[in-house]
Amino acid sequence: MPIVFFGARTPLKFLVLMVAIVAIHSVCASDSAPATSNINSAEYPRVGSDLSVTFRLKAPNAKEVKLEGGTGLIKAPLAMTNSPDGMWSVTTPPSVPGFHYYWFTVDGLRVNDSASYSWFGWGRETSGIEIPEAGVDFYDAKKDVPHGEIRIRSYFSEITGKWRRAHIYTPPGYDHASTTRYPVLYLLHGAGENERGWVEQGRAQNIFDNLLASGPTKPMIAVIDSGYAAYPVAFSASKSSTPANPTAAFEKVMLQELIPFIDTTYRTLASRENRAMAGLSMGSGQTLNITLHHLDQFAWIGAMSGPPRQGFEVSTAYDGVFRDISAFNNRVKLLWFGSGTAEERIYASTRAVYESLQQSGIHCQLYSSPGTDHEWQTWRRSLHELAPKLFHP
Amino acid sequence: MPIVFFGARTPLKFLVLMVAIVAIHSVCASDSAPATSNINSAEYPRVGSDLSVTFRLKAPNAKEVKLEGGTGLIKAPLAMTNSPDGMWSVTTPPSVPGFHYYWFTVDGLRVNDSASYSWFGWGRETSGIEIPEAGVDFYDAKKDVPHGEIRIRSYFSEITGKWRRAHIYTPPGYDHASTTRYPVLYLLHGAGENERGWVEQGRAQNIFDNLLASGPTKPMIAVIDSGYAAYPVAFSASKSSTPANPTAAFEKVMLQELIPFIDTTYRTLASRENRAMAGLSMGSGQTLNITLHHLDQFAWIGAMSGPPRQGFEVSTAYDGVFRDISAFNNRVKLLWFGSGTAEERIYASTRAVYESLQQSGIHCQLYSSPGTDHEWQTWRRSLHELAPKLFHP
Repeated sequence: MPIVFFGARTPLKFLVLMVAIVAIHSVCASDSAPATSNINSAEYPRVGSDLSVTFRLKAPNAKEVKLEGGTGLIKAPLAMTNSPDGMWSVTTPPSVPGFHYYWFTVDGLRVNDSASYSWFGWGRETSGIEIPEAGVDFYDAKKDVPHGEIRIRSYFSEITGKWRRAHIYTPPGYDHASTTRYPVLYLLHGAGENERGWVEQGRAQNIFDNLLASGPTKPMIAVIDSGYAAYPVAFSASKSSTPANPTAAFEKVMLQELIPFIDTTYRTLASRENRAMAGLSMGSGQTLNITLHHLDQFAWIGAMSGPPRQGFEVSTAYDGVFRDISAFNNRVKLLWFGSGTAEERIYASTRAVYESLQQSGIHCQLYSSPGTDHEWQTWRRSLHELAPKLFHP
Repeated sequence: MPIVFFGARTPLKFLVLMVAIVAIHSVCASDSAPATSNINSAEYPRVGSDLSVTFRLKAPNAKEVKLEGGTGLIKAPLAMTNSPDGMWSVTTPPSVPGFHYYWFTVDGLRVNDSASYSWFGWGRETSGIEIPEAGVDFYDAKKDVPHGEIRIRSYFSEITGKWRRAHIYTPPGYDHASTTRYPVLYLLHGAGENERGWVEQGRAQNIFDNLLASGPTKPMIAVIDSGYAAYPVAFSASKSSTPANPTAAFEKVMLQELIPFIDTTYRTLASRENRAMAGLSMGSGQTLNITLHHLDQFAWIGAMSGPPRQGFEVSTAYDGVFRDISAFNNRVKLLWFGSGTAEERIYASTRAVYESLQQSGIHCQLYSSPGTDHEWQTWRRSLHELAPKLFHP
């Protein structure tokens, strides 16, 4: 039996904490369960069988508490109600399955839920909740499936003057197949997120592991980096008086630093036919812009929930890359769009771009994620649809 | 120039956010700088040249705001003062270098700083700040040093009925030296922390990389897992009515699941002479208990800021493992204690245990970290002292 040692300054606090956490096990509605995303043993938030969610916050001195979060969870801020002991609570209408950011607004101050881990979204650490989808497990860790690995690699970017941290998925068996080389998918997050998004919120590693175990997906390396990369302030200041554009240096970082670093560090197939790029929302815009201007570097393109800007014209878009239809179709192995049907403007816009490209004779594909909004369930499904199509001859 | 796409529901919010963040660049005292641990571009908290720190929180509706945090940052909660625009602020006395947890208490509610990343400590996500130590860079990422990797590996624990997630440091060159096998150090966090602590707060990967580049440290694999492992509730409930002990299953998980998993997954030297264990605070207690009861599995032992409980007697401690002095000295390659001189009770207790062992003829070593308390700077320094001593014949 292990002796548990608690530090001299902290023992009582932690023992009280442990007991308090466990003591919260109160009598709860039998058809609800703690969210799987809760910090160990936390009973709230709880997800009902109808996917409604009950949240709680102890704030005896607060005057007004609201629940806020992603549209898949709630369509608008929800007022929470107070009980005499200072516990505020609210139950949402049935939510959309998947991962949703949320937070409490307490007398105007945005506060995370201490019962939740935090995920980087909205430009800050934010609480999140996982809502299960009945019968769906393609993004779950599974016991009977070989597992790849996520590797955290730091590299210094001379272009930005900063250290960057990439997350790299290597497929099952990478360590043992010591001469095998793999194609590479570069995968980008959305605005306000970072290089942990596809791992923590997206569960890309589980999606790849499960696809590889069950179907025709090609083993690949996936490189998950931040899409933010600014030029050093002094450099920007010399060119303009506006604040540094937080993504201005990304294209250069990716082409001149990240790709060479990955190709020298991992056993990649370092050719355009074996290099894909995909991203969501802001990362979709970056993907389209970088790949369509550098078809010498990429042959596979995935755009999730981020169509080109309004005013898209096939003949002029991306400096005319679509003008020579047969050249484009010969060169690009896959131009793939994905969007959730509930993210209405983006979905309509994605569909319109897809249709105009199709009508022009450009080969492309569209995946529609039923009933999901601008949220991670759309992007998990999108990766699950996209990955099996990549790198086949 | 990349086109930055912002999602349909979020563009204005994020643009406003970006501009707001950058606009905070106000006129600041010239001898202070934003903490390196701040989320990109956040100007506060700021660290002065005397290591005082200025914190800010915008909370116009709050009545009372306090800064709280680790003893290396502040010895007691500090009241923050309000300005007419609702900005609360406070400047601390000079702080101790290293990493410190902190948070704001707003009318009794514990709130993280949106300008800070969060680190898992105190059983929850908590803000943190990095205070530089003049002339000290052994835990910094360096350009001219070969880098190892942190690998995130999930494994299912049958003992706890849950997935667990280990972080594994592999040294520079691991991928290329495809037949080399390495000794393994198992490294544990403290109470209220988790398997990310040694990576995010401790920067173990930088400490190893820098040691390997500069000195006689043996290349090793370091396995950084959570020290929490509870038996499934139903199982516990059948044995007692008390809540599940959150660490009760750890010894069994480590010996029966984690070590075999690591030894079959990585190129380890799977013998006691090539297996070390070290931990801090609660993890030190776990280390001493597990290693001293399983000397058939471990030959190297590191106890940081966590001496045995009060009432330590050499002859009876750990079921008499120290009774046969020459047998112990022959068997155990290293018994090493580390503690910060400012964590007074723990330091005194560690020293007393060390001295009584020494007087009994047990070979052991003591490292004293000058001026640091029960905090990560003590443990970074401890790892930096301990690692070079490991695995030499």
